[in-house]
Amino acid sequence: MINTEASTAITKIENGNIASPKGYIVGGLHCGLKRKRHDLAWLYSVVPAKAAAVYTTNVFQAAPLKVTQDSIQQNGFIQGVIVNSGNANACTGETGLKNAYIMREWYANKIGSTPEDVVVLSTGVIGEQLNMEKLNEGINRIEIAENDSSVENFEKAILTTDTFRKSACVQVEINGHIITIGGAAKGSGMIKPNMATMLGFITTDANISQEALQYCLKTVTNDSFNMITVDGDTSTNDTVVLLANGLAGNVEWTLQDEAAIKLFQSALKEVCQSLAKQIARDGEGATKLLEVEVKGAVIKEDAEKIAKSIVGSSLVKTAVYGCDANWGRIICAAGYSGATTIDPNNITVFIGPHKVVENGVPHPFSEEEATSYLANEKIQLTVDLNGGDKTATAWGCDLSYDYVRINASYRT
Amino acid sequence: MINTEASTAITKIENGNIASPKGYIVGGLHCGLKRKRHDLAWLYSVVPAKAAAVYTTNVFQAAPLKVTQDSIQQNGFIQGVIVNSGNANACTGETGLKNAYIMREWYANKIGSTPEDVVVLSTGVIGEQLNMEKLNEGINRIEIAENDSSVENFEKAILTTDTFRKSACVQVEINGHIITIGGAAKGSGMIKPNMATMLGFITTDANISQEALQYCLKTVTNDSFNMITVDGDTSTNDTVVLLANGLAGNVEWTLQDEAAIKLFQSALKEVCQSLAKQIARDGEGATKLLEVEVKGAVIKEDAEKIAKSIVGSSLVKTAVYGCDANWGRIICAAGYSGATTIDPNNITVFIGPHKVVENGVPHPFSEEEATSYLANEKIQLTVDLNGGDKTATAWGCDLSYDYVRINASYRT
Repeated sequence: MINTEASTAITKIENGNIASPKGYIVGGLHCGLKRKRHDLAWLYSVVPAKAAAVYTTNVFQAAPLKVTQDSIQQNGFIQGVIVNSGNANACTGETGLKNAYIMREWYANKIGSTPEDVVVLSTGVIGEQLNMEKLNEGINRIEIAENDSSVENFEKAILTTDTFRKSACVQVEINGHIITIGGAAKGSGMIKPNMATMLGFITTDANISQEALQYCLKTVTNDSFNMITVDGDTSTNDTVVLLANGLAGNVEWTLQDEAAIKLFQSALKEVCQSLAKQIARDGEGATKLLEVEVKGAVIKEDAEKIAKSIVGSSLVKTAVYGCDANWGRIICAAGYSGATTIDPNNITVFIGPHKVVENGVPHPFSEEEATSYLANEKIQLTVDLNGGDKTATAWGCDLSYDYVRINASYRT
Repeated sequence: MINTEASTAITKIENGNIASPKGYIVGGLHCGLKRKRHDLAWLYSVVPAKAAAVYTTNVFQAAPLKVTQDSIQQNGFIQGVIVNSGNANACTGETGLKNAYIMREWYANKIGSTPEDVVVLSTGVIGEQLNMEKLNEGINRIEIAENDSSVENFEKAILTTDTFRKSACVQVEINGHIITIGGAAKGSGMIKPNMATMLGFITTDANISQEALQYCLKTVTNDSFNMITVDGDTSTNDTVVLLANGLAGNVEWTLQDEAAIKLFQSALKEVCQSLAKQIARDGEGATKLLEVEVKGAVIKEDAEKIAKSIVGSSLVKTAVYGCDANWGRIICAAGYSGATTIDPNNITVFIGPHKVVENGVPHPFSEEEATSYLANEKIQLTVDLNGGDKTATAWGCDLSYDYVRINASYRT
């Protein structure tokens, strides 16, 4: 069950999840916001946990984000998370904001905490008010019994157009203490760099200062959730919440504990990148995971711009869908990425193991082999700028007929 | 045949085209770069014309663009335009550049001008060398006979995945002289703000200084070709060329002739916006023209960003395709546009005549009527920021199954 990778002290826990770290109980149920499927998820930490969060950059932030920011700003401790799917509570004005606060209060009452120790997340349709009656009835039905998590119900209840549940877990030994980090996520359409219609929930039993926790989440998000794109749209509701309840028993790390923080960061990155890739793979209508690595950049920002530009290009995505080794579109997307340190005569491009461009002009390759490579379920494109030593990796998916089908009729 | 609009001195010439201004002869033929369809187009001005041009912002500029820039920089006069479709002559290295210069020379010999008086444009597949034998044979077959334009052949020979020919023409009387401006264009996929895989050819018989001509083209392009998007990809080959041969007989206008320049600019804008809209409407797989108008902005840049963001959103485009009055996606796209002067609580959104959002929250509307409106072939979305008096309009199209079909198999 446990796979140890020799190259690192970080151990991936195969069936681990958001409830694997000590002291977390989660569940989910159907309360009627969606027609049939689960739509209400909850998380409870047996002791108040330090909390960090990152949010969408969309100007139209949904009501629950304001409530969550409010809670985390109070004292940095969170004990409960309440989530609904089916309704994003976005563009809902004063009523929506009031409802999000009520939702927070109901769940706080249920777990016996103060409202300020609860965060609220919502995902789904925009511009409709929450059905508070159904929500109230749903929250009333929550039963929290220690050691009785239903992880599957939690993971199911946060989904919208996702086709599978997303989870990850790692363990790492730091100064003699085994630290566990677990996570769950939803995403699918409307995901792009800078996080969009994406909810991420990360738990850990590490004892770490709130400042250090926020620092770790922010840096790791830049290399994981912010490097995925499905359709270039950024939603009103994206949030990643990270809770650390300290039950692993280590003495609290602060930003001064550089070695411990660095190792914790690496472990957190494993979890966040795993969730990010699962989200990209589950892009609406996706049949393939697309990974774009950019190497040899003079500055990291340019590597990131190029990787995101390629992974987000509709023409690259349709070519990947159609198994067409159309490197011209890769070059094009690099060219309009806004990166300023590209030398067009110095660029190398690989489709999987096949070199297709060298020094900016076509390199002979077997179309047949490249097409056959593109039939895989995971596609790797590599661009080497041959200019410096900075790198970046972005993840996305192909663009299929099903993307159009799903989004031409989402609300109906 | 001539429609005069009372509100303006600019007259739209219904069947006018690129050969309507005095002194231009055009044609097109099939030389074998494409399998069956026309692939070689040419234009000849009976006297050398002043020339202006704007180019793609893509880092990977194709070889013909370098040759065209070179020609225009020599002395600003151009007498001939040679264009091929089927092959973009992009990412073709030194050989490609040499071939573009040879292509220029062959056509210069044909029309009896110097190579520096000829510009070269190419569109089609990236990364393959031109078949110079076929090209040579094609250019040899060109016959230029005065008053014997084949506009249809020109318009056909510049197309790639376009489904219809694109042309426009207006006349305007300036200081007692009738000035005619005509144009042709190709575009379709890979078009986005800042011009992409788009070729535009504009002719006029006005007598105007090269400096003033370049100024007019640049400003007008910002309100027309740079405000269209099909899939957000920007190509290596986009070029708009504007020739002014002076045969209308007016005394040369310079930038100091403000009234004449302003009127000429307005007339040029009519032609460029007409061509831009035709390109947007003919986006790959498009079934509808989408026009997004943003009003009430504090700064024009924000109006432009929001209009482009909405018209380029895959989620808005699929909703329009599916006749789904999904205003949430419109709000979302406005929110992530990068515009900084939006007040989320002050925004109004219209789908056609139907107000769907007021003060940032849903405004009651008839779903049935909105859906029925969205079944039209031309869709207008209006966003009022209620903040200032700046406006911008962007054009695009819906995103259909056919877009995926066309682009999943473009090269094969």
